[in-house]
Amino acid sequence: MHVRPGPDRLRHWEQRTDLPLLVASPVFLACYAVRVLAQGADPLLRDLALALALTIWTGFALDYGVRLVLSGQGIGFVRTHWLDTVVLVLPLLRPLRIVDTYTKLQRRRERPRLSLYGRVMSYASITSVLLSFSAALAVYQLERNAPDATIVTFGDSVWWACSTITTVGYGDATPVTPLGRACAVLLMACGVALLGAVTGSFSSWLIQVFGREDRDGHEPPVGR
Amino acid sequence: MHVRPGPDRLRHWEQRTDLPLLVASPVFLACYAVRVLAQGADPLLRDLALALALTIWTGFALDYGVRLVLSGQGIGFVRTHWLDTVVLVLPLLRPLRIVDTYTKLQRRRERPRLSLYGRVMSYASITSVLLSFSAALAVYQLERNAPDATIVTFGDSVWWACSTITTVGYGDATPVTPLGRACAVLLMACGVALLGAVTGSFSSWLIQVFGREDRDGHEPPVGR
Amino acid sequence: MHVRPGPDRLRHWEQRTDLPLLVASPVFLACYAVRVLAQGADPLLRDLALALALTIWTGFALDYGVRLVLSGQGIGFVRTHWLDTVVLVLPLLRPLRIVDTYTKLQRRRERPRLSLYGRVMSYASITSVLLSFSAALAVYQLERNAPDATIVTFGDSVWWACSTITTVGYGDATPVTPLGRACAVLLMACGVALLGAVTGSFSSWLIQVFGREDRDGHEPPVGR
Amino acid sequence: MHVRPGPDRLRHWEQRTDLPLLVASPVFLACYAVRVLAQGADPLLRDLALALALTIWTGFALDYGVRLVLSGQGIGFVRTHWLDTVVLVLPLLRPLRIVDTYTKLQRRRERPRLSLYGRVMSYASITSVLLSFSAALAVYQLERNAPDATIVTFGDSVWWACSTITTVGYGDATPVTPLGRACAVLLMACGVALLGAVTGSFSSWLIQVFGREDRDGHEPPVGR
Repeated sequence: MHVRPGPDRLRHWEQRTDLPLLVASPVFLACYAVRVLAQGADPLLRDLALALALTIWTGFALDYGVRLVLSGQGIGFVRTHWLDTVVLVLPLLRPLRIVDTYTKLQRRRERPRLSLYGRVMSYASITSVLLSFSAALAVYQLERNAPDATIVTFGDSVWWACSTITTVGYGDATPVTPLGRACAVLLMACGVALLGAVTGSFSSWLIQVFGREDRDGHEPPVGR
Repeated sequence: MHVRPGPDRLRHWEQRTDLPLLVASPVFLACYAVRVLAQGADPLLRDLALALALTIWTGFALDYGVRLVLSGQGIGFVRTHWLDTVVLVLPLLRPLRIVDTYTKLQRRRERPRLSLYGRVMSYASITSVLLSFSAALAVYQLERNAPDATIVTFGDSVWWACSTITTVGYGDATPVTPLGRACAVLLMACGVALLGAVTGSFSSWLIQVFGREDRDGHEPPVGR
Repeated sequence: MHVRPGPDRLRHWEQRTDLPLLVASPVFLACYAVRVLAQGADPLLRDLALALALTIWTGFALDYGVRLVLSGQGIGFVRTHWLDTVVLVLPLLRPLRIVDTYTKLQRRRERPRLSLYGRVMSYASITSVLLSFSAALAVYQLERNAPDATIVTFGDSVWWACSTITTVGYGDATPVTPLGRACAVLLMACGVALLGAVTGSFSSWLIQVFGREDRDGHEPPVGR
Repeated sequence: MHVRPGPDRLRHWEQRTDLPLLVASPVFLACYAVRVLAQGADPLLRDLALALALTIWTGFALDYGVRLVLSGQGIGFVRTHWLDTVVLVLPLLRPLRIVDTYTKLQRRRERPRLSLYGRVMSYASITSVLLSFSAALAVYQLERNAPDATIVTFGDSVWWACSTITTVGYGDATPVTPLGRACAVLLMACGVALLGAVTGSFSSWLIQVFGREDRDGHEPPVGR
């Protein structure tokens, strides 16, 4: 099969795969969640979840490969699309791509959209929540059988993830295994930046709202 | 009774209910505080507080219903006024509305007001303080009888709420029950954004003040 | 003695008292530090420190009173100069005023000054450091004899203050007495806002520096 | 040897030494890492690492001295180049200079560069990572033999450094010796400001990206 690379073909490919990829990401996360959380359940269910997750990951890999070829950049694609590369290797970080794909889709539909700060806030919040959930799953899987673990239930793990991504960091439940701590460092690094974006745009939005009052006078229309 | 919905009627209703709602919110909070804190007191007092809190909440629900009908949006009102919906279901989050109602009232009175950053700071601070107080009450109620609880007095709970909303997070007193932790996550999520607004506007205000010096020269009028 | 209030007299008074007040603030802090830290020392030294601290505080109170009278605002002065009122009642918060007084003095001298962000950063940093030192002293005094205290040396107290004002909050040393915790909450509230100002202006300054490169081209003068 | 100071000679010197200094900084850090971490290794290796680190530090000192003389500022150079002075005395803080040197080199080469926010983010991130690594090394060296230490392996130390620089601060591993705590305070002070810069520019960059969508319309070119 001969594939002639080019921006038109790549754009065409991306337009057709954006929606399936957007849907596949949460399904992948759900399969991983079933695999990790449904321990006492029917082994068939857990095997099905694993099989589906692997299938979806293969789809991600195929899409990456096709786009690499169509881009005509060769190995340079790995560097220019480093975020795609990272989420391919560490699929639990895929929530970082959902925002981008969703934005591209939205752009084509011309739905009435949120204000600028509203969009930054909602996208950063959604990514934070999904990333926390991924991290809670991974850390729970890695920690639950460790000796001296303080994270022994999934509830503990979610509690730990929430207190980490908000930088509160109580320390009553913390990972103790090297791999669990590596996940935690990834969550801190991504999460702190994302939360900073939420905080920053909320602050800017609030200043904008209070500033608008000054200009609009004393009786804004109710329908606003 | 026939009610013809319309922006004029809605505006009229809101103008007449803003002040009572603004007063009712802290009274509701006070009743809840009495109910939670006055454990050894006369049961009559606690029952009165509960009755008053329920009455006020019924008032909140009625106001919500009337505005839903007057808006003429039907079920769409639930989505466009999602913050109103949230504070109706979780009345302890009502401090999030106080700011908005107070602002609307202020707008009609034309009192000399604070500067833009001053308003953002004071409103975000007040909301943070009220929200921390609500969270401290709720967590104290949920945790005080839990086994292995580290929050056993209301003082511990306030201390925990302060260290949480500032993201310091010592971890010497933390909720251990699932519901207590759910409250804590709500406080972190709301609180971190609010504190970011306080910090951001304080920073902007300070830069503005220091920048004004440069322009104003060396002897600003004392009366400023 | 008849005192005719007026802006000229007030300005005159402030011009003459700014420098003594600026010097008196760190001396007051030093006296308090000697009183708290020199426990095994000669009682005479500790009494001298106390006497000097009380004398300086009396000076602060007199200055406040004179300015109240000269302003001609009567009791309104307490509200319009609320920061002065607060630092009079809680003299350990006086570092919050040092910045302001120092700025006023600088304005009259026309020394070459730092850039806008540099000034905001340095003043917020200095205030943070002084406030942390005050808080460390106060908490050490309140905690050292408490049962189950985790802050037992002044080193612990400084360590606690540093981890609090940066919102790291390890929790290995935390106040346990109600008064110690009240001091801690004050430090958190003031400190978080100040640190936000340091962080915010550092960030803005860095963006400005990197942005200047783009405009200035490739070989900026060495003397810059 | 007669040295006539002047901006031309200084600029010439800096142009020739920037690249060697940039390379020497990570080599110095690597030697220190070998010295600290390779405890069970051949003593010859550890002595070599120490000798190389000292040689490089001597080079840093010579460069500082030459620039001091060439600047013609005399002792004023110590103050105007205070950051150079600090990293000379505490060479583990040298990562703070790498950014600056690298930027100067980049400016001469005219490579295609990142956007403004991209540069601020990447430089602040790199400095944060290097500084955390330096702090983890220093704290590990100071703490590993302390009684009651909670940081007993290098892994613990890295974990502590990550949770500190992101201000999460779990407190499950914290320095207990005075020198270790002094290092920690330096890391907090530098790190919090750097992380604020990462967060701030990420937030600004995100707002810029989302804002660009509005202006660019619905189908941006794929090659962007």
